[in-house]
Amino acid sequence: MFSPLIDELINALRILPGVGPKSAQRMALHLLERDKPGAAKLASSLQQAIEHVGRCKLCRTLTEQDICATCTNPQRDSRLLCVVETPADVLAIEQAGNYSGRYFVLLGHLSPIDGIGPEDIGIDVLLERLQNEHIEELILATNPTIEGEATAHYLAEQAKRLEVRVSRIAHGVPLGGELEYIDGGTLAHAFNSRQGL
Amino acid sequence: MFSPLIDELINALRILPGVGPKSAQRMALHLLERDKPGAAKLASSLQQAIEHVGRCKLCRTLTEQDICATCTNPQRDSRLLCVVETPADVLAIEQAGNYSGRYFVLLGHLSPIDGIGPEDIGIDVLLERLQNEHIEELILATNPTIEGEATAHYLAEQAKRLEVRVSRIAHGVPLGGELEYIDGGTLAHAFNSRQGL
Ligand SMILES: [Zn+2]
Ligand SMILES: [Zn+2]
Repeated sequence: MFSPLIDELINALRILPGVGPKSAQRMALHLLERDKPGAAKLASSLQQAIEHVGRCKLCRTLTEQDICATCTNPQRDSRLLCVVETPADVLAIEQAGNYSGRYFVLLGHLSPIDGIGPEDIGIDVLLERLQNEHIEELILATNPTIEGEATAHYLAEQAKRLEVRVSRIAHGVPLGGELEYIDGGTLAHAFNSRQGL
Repeated sequence: MFSPLIDELINALRILPGVGPKSAQRMALHLLERDKPGAAKLASSLQQAIEHVGRCKLCRTLTEQDICATCTNPQRDSRLLCVVETPADVLAIEQAGNYSGRYFVLLGHLSPIDGIGPEDIGIDVLLERLQNEHIEELILATNPTIEGEATAHYLAEQAKRLEVRVSRIAHGVPLGGELEYIDGGTLAHAFNSRQGL
């Protein structure tokens, strides 16, 4: 309905989660009418991030470094390793403020129905770390959803075989919810009441 | 809280209207975890639009052409000229479906308090057109807000001086509302019951 380049921009904005046709139109016109410098900044940030952001070789989180800042931080307790599904979950746990160990970010969960097996979410890398590093406790903080629970169960089995102590964060977190949206207090409680598996 | 390039992308996304810190984070991680091709498409669409989209020389709407498709369309009645504030308003009126004339897009409204005078919203260009073209009716469809009303009033005065017939779309549109969010039926009604000023 607008000129081709504007229509194209409106379509491109719709890949953003939560953005429907009406808000995409509003965003495109706002940028072109009132904030071309902001649009240019957004274009170049996207370009930079696409080009340089990959995964940390140790924990698989998103980062433009080879090894991310958390993995290289000597203040973090290397004997604790917490498994989460996404980088947003790491942020949520950090904001809860009572965990000082390291993370392993699956960037997903097991989902046989979608053809997502252990190696697709880096479980091979994780098991190698459990074999080669001195990790005293593996804390499973995948989401309390069906897939998250299945992933935690699978990881617990594997870790026990390697004789690594495993725990699951407590279910103060409402079932079916997503970790990244839980308040810090509930999350801190869940960490504190974690139980050996 | 994430690595620098990711934080930068999250900040850049916040220039989008209606996007707060939490949704910006969600958008950035979604793109980097799951849709790098979509992100690349968005970056290039932004770049293309920034570079090529300017204003139509005749009606001032946003377009990458010198003269936009509506202005060059011989099917449109060149004796009717409808003044709106934004390209989104043009779209809303087109979707209402009962107007066949042309448009003039102010890309704003008079606002002395913000230092926005007649020339900042192209009124000089508009008056020149009223003098040089055979326009039988100038339809004022600025928003029924204080600034939109003031702009319509100013335009009516100027057009009368040039002996051009002026009308204002009827106030079926709720006062204080924004044209682009009104349903087509109300807008069509407002067009049909427009009154000479
Ligand atoms: Zn890392
Ligand atoms: Zn035009």
